[in-house]
This record gives sequence, structure tokens and C-alpha cells, in this order.
Amino acid sequence: MKLYNYFRSGTSFRVRIALNLKGLDYDYVSVHLAKGEQHGAAYRAISPDGLVPVLDVQGQPDEALLSQSMAIIEYLDETHPEPPLLPRDPLGRARVRALAQTIACEIHPINNLRILKYLAAPLGLDEAQRTAWYNHWVMEGLRAYERRLQDLAEERARRGLPPSVYSYGDHPTLADCCLVPQIVNGRRFGLEYEGIPLTLAVYERCMQLDAFQRAHPSRCPDAE
Amino acid sequence: MKLYNYFRSGTSFRVRIALNLKGLDYDYVSVHLAKGEQHGAAYRAISPDGLVPVLDVQGQPDEALLSQSMAIIEYLDETHPEPPLLPRDPLGRARVRALAQTIACEIHPINNLRILKYLAAPLGLDEAQRTAWYNHWVMEGLRAYERRLQDLAEERARRGLPPSVYSYGDHPTLADCCLVPQIVNGRRFGLEYEGIPLTLAVYERCMQLDAFQRAHPSRCPDAE
Repeated sequence: MKLYNYFRSGTSFRVRIALNLKGLDYDYVSVHLAKGEQHGAAYRAISPDGLVPVLDVQGQPDEALLSQSMAIIEYLDETHPEPPLLPRDPLGRARVRALAQTIACEIHPINNLRILKYLAAPLGLDEAQRTAWYNHWVMEGLRAYERRLQDLAEERARRGLPPSVYSYGDHPTLADCCLVPQIVNGRRFGLEYEGIPLTLAVYERCMQLDAFQRAHPSRCPDAE
Repeated sequence: MKLYNYFRSGTSFRVRIALNLKGLDYDYVSVHLAKGEQHGAAYRAISPDGLVPVLDVQGQPDEALLSQSMAIIEYLDETHPEPPLLPRDPLGRARVRALAQTIACEIHPINNLRILKYLAAPLGLDEAQRTAWYNHWVMEGLRAYERRLQDLAEERARRGLPPSVYSYGDHPTLADCCLVPQIVNGRRFGLEYEGIPLTLAVYERCMQLDAFQRAHPSRCPDAE
């Protein structure tokens, strides 16, 4: 497998974590977003919308270029079931997907590079306004994530279950693959993450795992 | 089942379509976003982040409040498998999810009510700037959707298959549940959708189906 990605891209980071959790080897192909490589003809032939990541899954079992990080991770989970990245029961799966989408639909799209660039030009917002924008939407989303973790913790307590180790249960899931890159990204912007203790505790526990450590931007071949 | 939603919310519209495609009855509970009902204590007890839609699935088969539209639709597909809203093969599922996420992660989050409000205040952008923002991101995303449909059409042609009727194959999928509300929403902003003929043709074919027609904002009990 070949992963077209970028060290600082949060969506790329998600897929690197999933590949590591599954124990799958892959070739790392860097697409340098800050230099604009995603707009070049060579990459547009791989990814018509110029987005990373793209996973090339030649022959395992399909011949295809896959895009959209959550879709890629679900594909990996369906084609390489162990260890599972989603629970087996429909309710648990809905919970994990909702957690993942709280990051992937409520936070990340509003704060990625292309949006921040558009705020600078044509909109002409200064750095303080852009940082306020970033912080506002990240914390809005992470507070929602925290409330979901609280609700799930109460539900487990009612059922006599011990607290979750990760976002949902005792094993990392799709939700953790989305959460960790968002936390790492926000640190670059100086966020201190006050008021979300459950979320931060999950992050810390994930970062103790080799699969998460090896996927970190600082460990990527194109890290700066 | 009980659906907490709002006639004009695109994510609510997605779930209404899926419920109709599955032939499932539900109680329509209106949460009036423009009046701010999502911020009231009553609704916050249902939805801690104040987002719609929420599906209450008491006893079928779980007792739970589900959130995030794509997670809800996948839950409905897993608990009520017929007619399927995702293909059976992993590659097909990845394709449909990527199409859905092109709408749900690349377009909708950047253009929903709370973002447009923030652009107005505190950022102080005027209506022309907000409309330009809306149009830019919607068309950026829909052109990506169109290129995906083109790629899929070429792939089908190579395999000797007839063109897709809907976004992926001969039956409506999760992708169509996401696409149609986005097209309807953009029309309110005056978008004319030039240069995306395959996408518009899929939209038109979906809108010939009763399940899509009945889910339309204009047919909702809280329509204005």
C-alpha cells in the first residue's frame, strides 16, 4: 500500500494511526501542502480534488485509490478486521462514528489550511482574528466531545462497567484516530485545552501506544 | 422513533431521506434553529452540543439518543438492512462513504448557520462577502463530487457496466442522502450549479423518488 500524505495534515495522521494499529506496512509518499504540491498536475492525477490523504490499495484486495480519511479507515477495518477499530454492536458503532464525526465534521473542516488561507486572503483577516477563529471552533467541538465522553462514562457506570480506557472502551477506535491528530494540531496554535479533562486523558493514553507515536508528524519522513 | 430536527437543516434532511428509504415511521420533533431553540435547556438535555438531528431509537433495538447524521444513517442501515444504503463490497462502501464525506466534511461544515453567523459577528463581513464564501466552498466541493462521479463513470465504462442511475449504482445510497440536501440548500443562496452536469442529473433522478420528495424542507411540519 502507498499513502499519499503530509506530515502536518491531521487527516493523514488519522490514516497513519489506523495503518499502524492494523500492523500494515505502507510506502510514505509526501505531498507538500505548504509548497502547494497538491495543486500540481502529477498529484491531481492521483487526487482530483487535490486533498490528502489518498491510499493506493493496489491488489489488497482491490485496485484503487481511496480518499477521505474516515472512509479509508472503515475500508481498512472491513478488509483487515483485526484488531477492530469499531465495536461489533450497531449502537457502539454509532457512538464511535458520532465521536469521530464530532472531530471530522464539526472541527477539522473549519480550521484546515485552505480555510485559514481564505480568511487571510481574500477576506483580509489578521493573525489575531484567524487564531481566534481557530480556537473558537476547536474548543466548541472539543467541549462537545468532552460532553459525549461524560455521557458515555455515566452510561457505563449505570451498567456497572469500569471507565473507558480510550474514547470508547478498552481499545483504540476510529474515534481515537480522529481525536489525537486534532489535539496535536491545536497545540501548534497554542491551545491549552482547559475544561476537557476526559478528552485529554484519552489523548495521553493513546500517545503511550507505539501505533500513535510512530504516526506523529515529528516522526514522518517529510517532517520539518 | 423520534427525530429531533429542523426543516431547513441539511443534516436533518439527510436522515429524513434515509428513514423514508427504509420505510420507517418516525415522530417529527421540530427544533427551531433560527429562533435558537437548540440553545435552550430542554434541548440541551437531548443534545449536549445543541446540534440537530438527534434520533431517539427507544427500543429498536437500543434505548438511545443518536447524533451525527452519517452515524445515524449507518446505524439505520445496520439495524434495518433493506434496502441497503451502502454496497456490499468494501471498495464500493469506501467509494460511497467518500462521496458522502465530500459533502459532509468538505462542504456542509463550512457553510452552516453557525459559521455564517460568526462571519457576520464578530467578524463583521457583509452579505456579499458571506455569499461569496458560501458559493466558493459549495462549488469547490461540488466540483470535487463531479470529478468523483466522472471517475466512477469511466471505471464502470471500462468494466462494461451501464452508467450509474444515482451517485453510485442503481439504488440510492448514503451519498445521495448527503448530496440532495446540499443542492437544495445552495438553491436558496441562488447558486446555479454550472459545470456539474453529472451531479445535477443524479439530483434530478433522486428527486423523482417519493422518499426524497417527502423529506424535502417544504413538506416538513415546521416549514415556513
